[in-house]
Amino acid sequence: MEKLPFQLKGLAAAVYTPFKSNGDINFGVISEYIDYLVKDGVQNAFICGTNGEGISLTFQERKEVAETWKHENNGRLKALVLHVGSGGIRETQELAAHAEKVGVDAIASGPPYGVKPRNLEELALYLQKVASCAPTTPFYYYHLDMNNSVKFGDMEDFIDILQQIPIPTFCGIKFTSKDLAELARCCRHPAGYQIASGHDPLLLPALAAGANVFISGTANFQGKLFSGIMDAFNGGDLQTATKLYDQLLKHSNIMRKYGPGVALGKAVTKLARFDPGPPRSPLRPVTKETEAMLKNDLQKIGFFESIN
Amino acid sequence: MEKLPFQLKGLAAAVYTPFKSNGDINFGVISEYIDYLVKDGVQNAFICGTNGEGISLTFQERKEVAETWKHENNGRLKALVLHVGSGGIRETQELAAHAEKVGVDAIASGPPYGVKPRNLEELALYLQKVASCAPTTPFYYYHLDMNNSVKFGDMEDFIDILQQIPIPTFCGIKFTSKDLAELARCCRHPAGYQIASGHDPLLLPALAAGANVFISGTANFQGKLFSGIMDAFNGGDLQTATKLYDQLLKHSNIMRKYGPGVALGKAVTKLARFDPGPPRSPLRPVTKETEAMLKNDLQKIGFFESIN
Amino acid sequence: MEKLPFQLKGLAAAVYTPFKSNGDINFGVISEYIDYLVKDGVQNAFICGTNGEGISLTFQERKEVAETWKHENNGRLKALVLHVGSGGIRETQELAAHAEKVGVDAIASGPPYGVKPRNLEELALYLQKVASCAPTTPFYYYHLDMNNSVKFGDMEDFIDILQQIPIPTFCGIKFTSKDLAELARCCRHPAGYQIASGHDPLLLPALAAGANVFISGTANFQGKLFSGIMDAFNGGDLQTATKLYDQLLKHSNIMRKYGPGVALGKAVTKLARFDPGPPRSPLRPVTKETEAMLKNDLQKIGFFESIN
Amino acid sequence: MEKLPFQLKGLAAAVYTPFKSNGDINFGVISEYIDYLVKDGVQNAFICGTNGEGISLTFQERKEVAETWKHENNGRLKALVLHVGSGGIRETQELAAHAEKVGVDAIASGPPYGVKPRNLEELALYLQKVASCAPTTPFYYYHLDMNNSVKFGDMEDFIDILQQIPIPTFCGIKFTSKDLAELARCCRHPAGYQIASGHDPLLLPALAAGANVFISGTANFQGKLFSGIMDAFNGGDLQTATKLYDQLLKHSNIMRKYGPGVALGKAVTKLARFDPGPPRSPLRPVTKETEAMLKNDLQKIGFFESIN
Repeated sequence: MEKLPFQLKGLAAAVYTPFKSNGDINFGVISEYIDYLVKDGVQNAFICGTNGEGISLTFQERKEVAETWKHENNGRLKALVLHVGSGGIRETQELAAHAEKVGVDAIASGPPYGVKPRNLEELALYLQKVASCAPTTPFYYYHLDMNNSVKFGDMEDFIDILQQIPIPTFCGIKFTSKDLAELARCCRHPAGYQIASGHDPLLLPALAAGANVFISGTANFQGKLFSGIMDAFNGGDLQTATKLYDQLLKHSNIMRKYGPGVALGKAVTKLARFDPGPPRSPLRPVTKETEAMLKNDLQKIGFFESIN
Repeated sequence: MEKLPFQLKGLAAAVYTPFKSNGDINFGVISEYIDYLVKDGVQNAFICGTNGEGISLTFQERKEVAETWKHENNGRLKALVLHVGSGGIRETQELAAHAEKVGVDAIASGPPYGVKPRNLEELALYLQKVASCAPTTPFYYYHLDMNNSVKFGDMEDFIDILQQIPIPTFCGIKFTSKDLAELARCCRHPAGYQIASGHDPLLLPALAAGANVFISGTANFQGKLFSGIMDAFNGGDLQTATKLYDQLLKHSNIMRKYGPGVALGKAVTKLARFDPGPPRSPLRPVTKETEAMLKNDLQKIGFFESIN
Repeated sequence: MEKLPFQLKGLAAAVYTPFKSNGDINFGVISEYIDYLVKDGVQNAFICGTNGEGISLTFQERKEVAETWKHENNGRLKALVLHVGSGGIRETQELAAHAEKVGVDAIASGPPYGVKPRNLEELALYLQKVASCAPTTPFYYYHLDMNNSVKFGDMEDFIDILQQIPIPTFCGIKFTSKDLAELARCCRHPAGYQIASGHDPLLLPALAAGANVFISGTANFQGKLFSGIMDAFNGGDLQTATKLYDQLLKHSNIMRKYGPGVALGKAVTKLARFDPGPPRSPLRPVTKETEAMLKNDLQKIGFFESIN
Repeated sequence: MEKLPFQLKGLAAAVYTPFKSNGDINFGVISEYIDYLVKDGVQNAFICGTNGEGISLTFQERKEVAETWKHENNGRLKALVLHVGSGGIRETQELAAHAEKVGVDAIASGPPYGVKPRNLEELALYLQKVASCAPTTPFYYYHLDMNNSVKFGDMEDFIDILQQIPIPTFCGIKFTSKDLAELARCCRHPAGYQIASGHDPLLLPALAAGANVFISGTANFQGKLFSGIMDAFNGGDLQTATKLYDQLLKHSNIMRKYGPGVALGKAVTKLARFDPGPPRSPLRPVTKETEAMLKNDLQKIGFFESIN
């Protein structure tokens, strides 16, 4: 288990899964995608999460996506974290085992998308069963407390419970929630797990709360700005950090205006970098009209200058 | 499309998926299971729904479960309705196509368990894509407005939307919600779809609201009582219906006391009929102690007499 | 305590508080209001509840409203039930004491509108303090599980808790919730309290669930239809009950279309009976345009024939 | 309207209302209370809010509390902000008018505790009516998005709406919500209102988000620590700010352990400063046992050293 203790370093992009116009996965653009990320200073990818529409892929596709990212990356991004959560336990376990075979750097899972645990103890028992199928691969809990997901109690309580229901490969939490007081407490827990913040508009406050690693959707096109804020804050230059954060919030406001989400993020990626194609149903691609308005709004706030 | 218009008749049991103690599916007891249901007057089965832990099965297992029920039933139960909803659209479509090939009598799906539609229109567009893969198989919408699921607006509005976004195989709604005013309105909608009530403790009020078909978990062991209430009500004998409903509520109270759910239902089935084995994680089987208390409580209310 | 045990009999209207156009209470129309109710077969009034905008009245106004209804009624309506719940305990206690002095037939209160109890035990302790200030006046718990109110656990559990935290004047629950399974269980509780259903579109299913008394907003103009359904059901004539219930649901649908609520109910009352004036801010009276459309829709379903 | 534009400066304590053991208000300790606050560097008081159990006071008591704070303060605290929100509009308007007569420095109100506005526009219209009764007193919106309160949309949208529905005395928002991304956007709104953060465990992240004024319950006993964090942050000394924030979080953790709230805060105040007496029902004072455990836990984290 030489990979442990494992620590993500720097910025991770929560990457999209590119699709062709017929809805099939567009494996051919993944290498170019990685180029863009690396050029922007992004160091890691979080694959098949919410942004990656992992749960909208078939079991077979998820394996192929993992294999392709591993093969195409070829060491360029420092770490590949693969989300293996699915509808139920057996496929999640198989995806975990497959991930270890493929050789990703870490895996992540939340509760199953179907039948829900009733409390944190049942959640820990479930995750213990999942993580045991990838016994040498670092494991992150995917805490998603937004977008109609069910909140499972307090993450500090969860970390306490893990002392009773141990998961040997447990490394930390992908903390996609707005509750920075909870994040601040988790960052100070003596267990010392890594708490990776996942809500982009909270970047600067999350740094102040104690987060030092981020898994970000914005990093798909704004890695430089994101890293700039982190670097300024870590260097003690709050003034610069705040000025860059102002720019990030301008972008967040546009995302909020058009409805945040994967469809919109893919549209921005198309305008900014390369075309990741449409999302899968029930998501719908943004219309031509929205795309035009979006482009106009992004130009007004200097988005395209900020990413180059 | 000779199967349409399709109407479920009588009582459907929301059947469990039997597991062995190692967690594998116990296909061997399904024929015996059907025997019990038929003997109790149950006429249909709803397979791979919440009770059937469908979303906890692998893609491959779900196909095998569908094939086995079809083969083992051999016409004994009048109709087999298969839930094909999964994490995302492509597997749901494949399960729908497979169901048609197997020859089940109807399929059902709710929204995907992963990425959620944002409104009823997106839901209808999603279901249209699913149903189109089983073009001659009657389709039910699986409306689950309980257990932390996301509620998608009002079902009367949904029926209205289907007039704009047509699903040719649409037959009705498995209405698993406590809102009987909504159910009453849906039952009176001129579109004339079948509204199958799915919350057992509401049986008699749901009959009064206008429901005439039920998909019931209690029917796994209490088909006689359930049918008795339906028959008395339909025969205009409210006094008898109410007296039998009193008995049903006594049972509901015990289920409520120990926490309603699949694990408990499987324990009652074991005490009453045959052993369907443990549920899958994150569910946990009831303990020996709970089973003993449960048995005692069931004896006190005359449960075992009521089912024979 | 000669008034106990107390039982409401027949139908109660959840009456509006009439206002003048300047927002002051229009005490002058209350006698005429009672005339209409009595003519429609309504037997009781529930005063200063949600429909009565009780919490929007000042402390002083609430006392005057209670006094006026008592004085103007002069025995015409069989029972006056006064809601005394307010922001906090002391004013609620004073309103309860005042109600007893005025001589209303029963009082009702939910949790305070401000600081909330954290559980059913704290709720019972609070209500015990309130009810003790009106020691000879029957007390109903105002269970409001709709319109963004906080749900306080299960009412069957609450009745159990009252066996430990007794309220000597406790008579029953104004059960304004859609959960008829919970209502059915409460109706069968050995404590034998009266469970008064308060959600009008559920009338017929609620009767089947076991409710035998209703506190209804619709009764402000549709007392005859409401009583007709109750009478037909109680006489065992389900066919007539269902036919009349169809008419009630047509009306419910119109209320749903324009947004249910006090402002709309007052507009319907104006069209049907007498002008109760506008509601108080933050509610806004319906516009002239809405009123015209509402009238047209009501005409189409035969509303005006149904009420005369 | 010489008071406008008004800006709170420095730290405000969300003060408790002291009660005697018989439940009456203990006016006699308010002067001593102010002494403690001033000694700790607290500059302002927020009176009759959630901490002050304002909604649990009678209408008459609220006036007396306002008068007493004004009289006893005698200029020691820089600004007194009085919460005037109540069950309904008329009493809120009267409290606003009384506040202006008394001469408090600012008033605050949220939506009424009873009938709720349905959207931000109705909320703004309601508050416009309230604020107009105190035409020369600065007005803050009391945004309470916690503790089972109803969330009214996004505060940035609310500020936009105020450009259409103007409130001349509007000065800012008491932002008691965990959503720091929303707070960050509000702080950057060109309208330039003051956004006062009200969730203590978020202090340092809220500073990073852009908040520069705080209304704090912790400030009742921890004004020095609180001010220390603000001063260090504003002086660019993140290291010291973080170290002091660690101490604040240790305290937050203890509050979380025993259940946050007014009853607990009053118990800590009693241990730390003076006895503010019990809270009013439905709140219950902490038990002797809890008080002993609490004292022990506070000693362990060095709480008593930190406040002196």
